[in-house]
Amino acid sequence: LIVETAVRVLTPKSLQGKRVLVTAGPTWEPFDPVRFITNPSSGKMGFALAVEASRRGAHVDLVTGPTNLLDPPFLSTHRVKTALEMDRVVRDLAATADVIVMSAAVSDYRPEETAPQKVKKSDRDLTIRLIRTPDILAGVGAVKRADQVLVGFAAETENLIENATEKLRKKNLDFIVANDLTRPGSGFRCDTNQVKILDRGGQVDTLPCLTKNEVARRILDRVETLLQKVDHE
Amino acid sequence: LIVETAVRVLTPKSLQGKRVLVTAGPTWEPFDPVRFITNPSSGKMGFALAVEASRRGAHVDLVTGPTNLLDPPFLSTHRVKTALEMDRVVRDLAATADVIVMSAAVSDYRPEETAPQKVKKSDRDLTIRLIRTPDILAGVGAVKRADQVLVGFAAETENLIENATEKLRKKNLDFIVANDLTRPGSGFRCDTNQVKILDRGGQVDTLPCLTKNEVARRILDRVETLLQKVDHE
Repeated sequence: LIVETAVRVLTPKSLQGKRVLVTAGPTWEPFDPVRFITNPSSGKMGFALAVEASRRGAHVDLVTGPTNLLDPPFLSTHRVKTALEMDRVVRDLAATADVIVMSAAVSDYRPEETAPQKVKKSDRDLTIRLIRTPDILAGVGAVKRADQVLVGFAAETENLIENATEKLRKKNLDFIVANDLTRPGSGFRCDTNQVKILDRGGQVDTLPCLTKNEVARRILDRVETLLQKVDHE
Repeated sequence: LIVETAVRVLTPKSLQGKRVLVTAGPTWEPFDPVRFITNPSSGKMGFALAVEASRRGAHVDLVTGPTNLLDPPFLSTHRVKTALEMDRVVRDLAATADVIVMSAAVSDYRPEETAPQKVKKSDRDLTIRLIRTPDILAGVGAVKRADQVLVGFAAETENLIENATEKLRKKNLDFIVANDLTRPGSGFRCDTNQVKILDRGGQVDTLPCLTKNEVARRILDRVETLLQKVDHE
């Protein structure tokens, strides 16, 4: 905490007065009280973004699925489990946010039914019907105002640029951070990340392999550039 | 590491010369490279058991599913992801073990098929067919020798005693540690645990709410009592 306080004092307050909403981590989609569908997201990228935005003077709301990371100091952490819960909290907070960075790895599907008790195993096979969860990012993009900056993430195992470009357009993002999951030292459960940033103008910026803290700084530098344009319009 | 070394020196070597196999953590059962079925196990109970057995002088093999815990010093940690992988490693190690404590929360079911690439979401619903994973505990119980001590865990949301008693018999365990998941301060992701220990004689021992480290000590005390009986026969 002492180190964090010192770092905060030394960081220029370039996001002072701005409200930043960050989502992080995986979601858990249960089919009974002890079994669920999820993904390997550790939450590290989102937590790094929230901490850096807070150091730059922003009021930060961090909405996170289950992770082993502690609530960072100096910001508001909102803990949720499922995509439905995350959707509700993000909708509440998005309207008043200047910047929204959606780095959570939200489950696209959830079990249609959740059993109230642990399902006892039997010798028979089991079939789970999965239904779509709300598309939180598209929901926020649909009501985004011109003075808001919206950033998304794309994690892919193939066709990275095509998939990320389509997501950028469809969800009305200002830019998207694209992550090739097949690359070592990148993506889930790493402290480093090698990403490409794609913007609305079709530009693809390939960053070197960086720590997630440094990726967070690069992303927020871009956010600040966009905010300056917005403020001058 | 300095503290651990001091604690080790001070712990009586009551398991010297014994080989102890401990399983820990959840398993991940993938249906594509980034989505899987799992449970909330943190691995803490199994890691506490492995560390305590090692402090008591045992040669310890810890077989663990994905957790955020670091490899403990002074013992062999084997990291696996799926129930199939855990089954293979446990079978290899079980034959030469004197004590086997199976605290992993192994997934009972796994997706019948695993897609090689991330499944793109579509507007359609999805159905996953789940098939049974190998019953690792029953497999070990079936070939257990009279000079081996085998301990299992039961985590339930209802009918705790009945379900644990049935598991104890069916899997040929020496005793079972039963865990009521509906009780606060118990079970998954806690540092404390409130368990009952059921033995083959039908005795139920209800322990108070203890740290997982203390629960580990109580379990290994019981194991040592059983080993002494075995050695005297």
